[in-house]
Parts: sequence; structure tokens; C-alpha cells
Amino acid sequence: MERAVVLLSGGVDSSTVLAIARAEGFACHALSFRYGQRHMAELRAAERVAAALGASSHRTIAVDLRAIGGSALTDAIDVPKDRTLAAMAQEIPVTYVPCRNLVFIALAAGLGETLGARHLFLGVNAIDYSGYPDCRPEFIEAVERTLAIGSKAGAEGRPFRIHTPLIHMTKAQIVRKGMELGLDFALTHSCYEPDAEGRACGACDSCILRRKGFEEAGVADPTRYREP
Amino acid sequence: MERAVVLLSGGVDSSTVLAIARAEGFACHALSFRYGQRHMAELRAAERVAAALGASSHRTIAVDLRAIGGSALTDAIDVPKDRTLAAMAQEIPVTYVPCRNLVFIALAAGLGETLGARHLFLGVNAIDYSGYPDCRPEFIEAVERTLAIGSKAGAEGRPFRIHTPLIHMTKAQIVRKGMELGLDFALTHSCYEPDAEGRACGACDSCILRRKGFEEAGVADPTRYREP
Repeated sequence: MERAVVLLSGGVDSSTVLAIARAEGFACHALSFRYGQRHMAELRAAERVAAALGASSHRTIAVDLRAIGGSALTDAIDVPKDRTLAAMAQEIPVTYVPCRNLVFIALAAGLGETLGARHLFLGVNAIDYSGYPDCRPEFIEAVERTLAIGSKAGAEGRPFRIHTPLIHMTKAQIVRKGMELGLDFALTHSCYEPDAEGRACGACDSCILRRKGFEEAGVADPTRYREP
Repeated sequence: MERAVVLLSGGVDSSTVLAIARAEGFACHALSFRYGQRHMAELRAAERVAAALGASSHRTIAVDLRAIGGSALTDAIDVPKDRTLAAMAQEIPVTYVPCRNLVFIALAAGLGETLGARHLFLGVNAIDYSGYPDCRPEFIEAVERTLAIGSKAGAEGRPFRIHTPLIHMTKAQIVRKGMELGLDFALTHSCYEPDAEGRACGACDSCILRRKGFEEAGVADPTRYREP
């Protein structure tokens, strides 16, 4: 069984990616990050999802992106609320964490070297997250080339392959794919600003995209929202 | 004054790079990492060097590479001792930390975005560290391309430039350059396995390369070695 490292935030996208990688027959080593996010609800979700989908292992690596700052996900910057999709697409949002995806992929590749895994799975999406420069296919290709040159695995002729099965899918397609593979979305978490019980705000970009995904997929939304 | 982020481990190479970046007129923000290395002597050295060379700031970011494993620098794997240069050049050493340089550069770029710095300085060297795939010029070029595509700075038309002034220099040339710029090498630390007082072992690859550098440069070696 080929090994893969799967980046798992515990949201809809990365959880669906784990389901896909498992369905493709990979032994999946899930990897999450404690990077200074303002809440731990997503890490608890990642644990639930990894267990439910039969990941071979699940690790959480601490990397303190608060020391870098510059993002509403790690700093005391307001998370935007009730934005339209057009507004989201217009600019790089304040929830963008500088160079986060490159940091995460590099750590995944490092773990891949240690585990002898040559496949990295990533839930990036170029449609709903079009404002993030590090979610575009050209970026993923550039990282793959960089790893082929700069990793031990690459130098030894066993370069990493980065799988991004969701990159051109809409949220509705992602939700349908996850359902098809038996993923229980009630285990996942998306909200940028949940309350202490992990209930979603319903108004941040991530909640809006998630809700829209369930609506368009024609699937009941299992998200626990807090009272308005 | 243009801003730069300078990766600073506190060794001979990165300290010389900081001296070069300062001499070139950059306002330098030094960046070190607490990545699970087995000793803190190099972080103390980095602090001393940053202060002595007038860095504008010095940050240490925690990123737990022990969770990845696979290296003698973070795990309970023996650090090789008394190796010849030929032996060092022959293979990727066990002191290689999987994908460490890519993780570090990505974090430096993230900090650069937040600080508005478009220059990254790195002490990689393709001669003495020829066994490390992530010290080669092709790797640095690939990372620069990746950041141009995947960072906010790059997307906004202000791509990062990665400076590697030492990449083709011998250790002797690096030592001479540092001396020329007034760097006090007694402040720096290189040993992979120092004792509790920070004194060097004199036998690990890093000590051997350092000692050879001072000898070939014809400069007195200020390193404090422990008793044999």
C-alpha cells in the first residue's frame, strides 16, 4: 500500500481530500498544524475525521505563525463578516496567513521523507479561494518542482507528487464527493470564529462558503450554528 | 532604507551573511528558529550576533521539526564524528533535517510580507554542504519562482529576492569576509553537540568545517573547545 501525507485542517475540503485519498487506496498519514489559530475547534475536528476515515496516523505539528503576524486568523484583526462572494473574490483577504501553504507543504514533505511517503494530498481550491495566491495550480506546480530539486527524496530520484483533487471543484461538488465517499460532515469544522462549544458563527467567509456548498449540493447542512 | 529578513542560526555562515546585508545597507530583521534542536547554544549565539551587528529586530519562531524526525539534529541519532571531507561529500548526512530550508525560507517570506521586506538573506553554501540538496543554487531559484507565484508580495508585483552571498564561497573565504566586515567570530557557534557551557566538541562535521575555515584563512580560531 502506497503511503501518503494528507494535510488535514478538519474542514470540509481537507476532510473530503482524506476520504478521496483513502478511496484511492493510500495508507494516509494525516497532518494538522497548531499554528497559533485563535481557536482549537478545527484541531478537534481533524482528530475526529482522521479517526472516522481510518487514517494510519495523525500528527499535529506546532509552528508559531503568530510570530509572523499579519492575519486575522492568528492576530487580533477582525474576521470579516457577511461578505458577498464578489467581495471575497476581489482581494487577498485578511484571513490569508502569509506563506502558510508553503510552510505547511514543506512540513508535509519533510514528514513524507521520514515516513517514506511520496504522495502529498492537499485540499486547496482555486475557485472558492481565488483570492489566495497559494491556492492556484501554478503555485502547486512550482512547489512540486522545488521539492524535486531540494528534497532528499527528489535528489534520490523519488520526487513527491502533490495531489490536489479539489482544485477545480465547486464547494457543492466537494460536498457531493464527500457524501458519496461516506464522509460525515457533522464531524468537520469550518468557522473562523466559533464559540467555546465549537458552534459556527454563520457569517464569516468560511461559514458562508460552507453553507452555500450544502445548499447547492441539495444536502442538509449538519453544521451547529450558535444562536443569533 | 530597504528592509531584509536575514536567517540567522548564529553560526559562521549566517552571521557573515548578516554582516554582508548590513554592509550593503539593508535594515535587517534577523530570524532564528527553535525547531527542536538538541541544544540552545546556537540560539544564544544568534542573539549575541544580532545585537553586535545592529539588526533592527531579532525574532525566534518555534516550529517543532521533532514531529517530523529523521535527523541527528533533532532525534536521538548519533551525530557523526571525525569524518573526512570526502566522507561528508559522499552522501546526504544524518544531520540533514528533511525540508528544513524550505520551511525556514517560507517562514522568512511570511515575515517579509508582514514587515514589507522584499529581500531574504540566506547563508546556504553549495561547497562545504554539497551533500544537502537544499543548499544548491537550482533549489534557491526554484523557491524564488515559487514565492513569486504563491505569495501576496509576488501576486502584487513585488516578488521576493533571495540573496545567497556565500553560495559559491569556501569556508576560508567566508571567514575572511566576516573578519573584513568586523564580525567577532567568538560570538558565533557551530558545533552540533556542544557541552552545557556551549563549548564545541571539535569532532562533528560542523566543527571540522569551521576549524578548517579558520586554518585556511590563516586566522586564529576563537572557538572554545571542551577538554578532550
